[in-house]
Amino acid sequence: MTTGVLGFRFAAVEAAVKKPGRLDVALAVSDRPAVAAGVFTRNLVRAAPVVLCEQRLATGRMRAVLANSGCANACTGEPGLEAARSTTAAVARELGIDAEQVLPASTGVIGVVLPGDRIAARASELVARLDPQGHDAFARAIMTTDRFPKVSRAELPGGSRLLGIAKGAGMIHPDMGPPHATMLAFLFTDAVCDHGALQHALVGAAEETFNAVSVDGDTSTNDTLVVLASGASGKVAAPTDLGDALRHVCGELARAMVKDGEGAEHVAEIVVKGLPTADAARQIARTVATSLLWKTAMFGCDANWGRVLAAAGRAGVPFDPDRAVIRIGGVELVRGGMPVGGDSDARAGAVMKGEAYVVEVVLGDGPGQGRYFASDIGHKYVDVNAGYRS
Amino acid sequence: MTTGVLGFRFAAVEAAVKKPGRLDVALAVSDRPAVAAGVFTRNLVRAAPVVLCEQRLATGRMRAVLANSGCANACTGEPGLEAARSTTAAVARELGIDAEQVLPASTGVIGVVLPGDRIAARASELVARLDPQGHDAFARAIMTTDRFPKVSRAELPGGSRLLGIAKGAGMIHPDMGPPHATMLAFLFTDAVCDHGALQHALVGAAEETFNAVSVDGDTSTNDTLVVLASGASGKVAAPTDLGDALRHVCGELARAMVKDGEGAEHVAEIVVKGLPTADAARQIARTVATSLLWKTAMFGCDANWGRVLAAAGRAGVPFDPDRAVIRIGGVELVRGGMPVGGDSDARAGAVMKGEAYVVEVVLGDGPGQGRYFASDIGHKYVDVNAGYRS
Repeated sequence: MTTGVLGFRFAAVEAAVKKPGRLDVALAVSDRPAVAAGVFTRNLVRAAPVVLCEQRLATGRMRAVLANSGCANACTGEPGLEAARSTTAAVARELGIDAEQVLPASTGVIGVVLPGDRIAARASELVARLDPQGHDAFARAIMTTDRFPKVSRAELPGGSRLLGIAKGAGMIHPDMGPPHATMLAFLFTDAVCDHGALQHALVGAAEETFNAVSVDGDTSTNDTLVVLASGASGKVAAPTDLGDALRHVCGELARAMVKDGEGAEHVAEIVVKGLPTADAARQIARTVATSLLWKTAMFGCDANWGRVLAAAGRAGVPFDPDRAVIRIGGVELVRGGMPVGGDSDARAGAVMKGEAYVVEVVLGDGPGQGRYFASDIGHKYVDVNAGYRS
Repeated sequence: MTTGVLGFRFAAVEAAVKKPGRLDVALAVSDRPAVAAGVFTRNLVRAAPVVLCEQRLATGRMRAVLANSGCANACTGEPGLEAARSTTAAVARELGIDAEQVLPASTGVIGVVLPGDRIAARASELVARLDPQGHDAFARAIMTTDRFPKVSRAELPGGSRLLGIAKGAGMIHPDMGPPHATMLAFLFTDAVCDHGALQHALVGAAEETFNAVSVDGDTSTNDTLVVLASGASGKVAAPTDLGDALRHVCGELARAMVKDGEGAEHVAEIVVKGLPTADAARQIARTVATSLLWKTAMFGCDANWGRVLAAAGRAGVPFDPDRAVIRIGGVELVRGGMPVGGDSDARAGAVMKGEAYVVEVVLGDGPGQGRYFASDIGHKYVDVNAGYRS
């Protein structure tokens, strides 16, 4: 009885990319060529592994994912590309497969070339450790400022399975498009599906999940979301079932990233309603989710709805402020654009002491609704990021 | 010998809008009807005093500015408008002028109606205190989280003068348009000029100064920039001279706001060059200036150029990352999109221990150049904003 998905094995080793003594290189291998799809950061500055992933996904079916933490291999020019090629080649040699079938992914400091020799030297140990149960080691090896590993599972109707593994806590404001954060997320399914359906389902799932969370508003150079479908269950996945499963697993992983946002103590689900379109609602939800004043009010457990409404007002989307209704954790704070008063601020403030709550912003009676998940910004965030490279 | 400008008098009183014992209401009066122009926040959510200022500026010449700290009078509906009307009316009565000639301005907590009675009760004391030398008391009375008052002066060719008074430390990302933070800035000149030239010069000056600074990325509901020209010097100002003087004074005040950004210890002048257009360059400068990862790196004195380049890459403006050059305080860190290495990071880090420095980002050889002034985000910022309302 495996807790994994059929047809995949996983491993992790220490290769001193991070400080010694910590897992930092992870490998996932499909026993047979897997149908693969991916979406990557829309940042103009794209790390070497992102460039290679896009090239290789165009060539067809994939066999493996080679991921490392501790080094983003971004802004590293040709030497960075060469390091990504040589490490995937070393692993491919041990596996007896084509290097073009290995997808590289990196996360960590920008501007340092991946130490390819150190990783290549551990290729045979990495392959030797491959295990159907190895996904937890994989999840730990790709962590950077993450406080906990992120794994999610779903079972599709018919019995095939989907496993998702992700990392991400900072530089998290994913914006991934058809061929998005540094978030890395790898999905593995043993369902049978075709490439078009898989890519379509992945793009849709990314838009509703990873692309709707923000820790710090900064979109990474390395964001990578890749799915491999081994087909090893022999069970064909209907496109809608595939989409549902991807959305479920991507949603869990995305929310885990916000919960694990650097220094974060609270997660707010910003739900904006009543706009003419979903895009308009989502733009407002994004602006509130990235407002530094709102995020520090979250840290202070201060139901400072004025900061929510001021952020909405600068989102570039027309609405009538005099119709605004704002509720936090169900406590109504604002109606008709004005405070309801009484003890509403205190009651909402008490809700905000909790780990997670909903901020509902109703701005009219249109059908458009959008949401974003946001973490708070406090002292631990400053500590993590003022000294990240030291 | 006055340090002020001819034709204006200033005063401030304590009216318990803030905690007792602090100046919180300020008045500036022109001895004769002054040519007036203004630009205000483009936030959809506009405070009552902003609404009234726009209406009153349309009616012609102005006699006075009545400003308070401690209460933004925003999201306060009709009661807020009524409080702004009644306080300006009380002051107008004491001055023997029309209330429509008094421009109200407020800054402080959102969602609390201005305590009009307390202010009206001090109207006669306020008028009695009017003094050509009263501008320093005015500057102190409009402070909120500001650590120091902000006053700037310029002399125009011909001998007329311009005095600027501003406040602003938080919710500072001005975006003011022809009829922008909560920043409040009031300019007083004794030059003779016409309304069209004054409004045109003000819009241009705002765009290059206040609209190019960011403390926290949040645009306020109350941002107000107003200029009154008394003509009392009898000296006609040429439009270009007027523009130069406004740009000089607005520039000094805007930089003072960033230096006084909540908890700020450092100011970076982000200069982006080599883009096809100035707008493109400015959009990138704005994105770097508002990047939370860059602003915490500033706090940590970490020359983390990867965060600068990653922010540039998500600005929505096309450029070739492989041509990027980045310098901090003249220390070149990146050339051809890659780190120059050596001790450049350490040398640039030493520069960043200073109070102010330039971050130069060259992204091509186009003529477009733009700049933004940014403060750092550290522990004091979190302290100020996690507990602002308590």
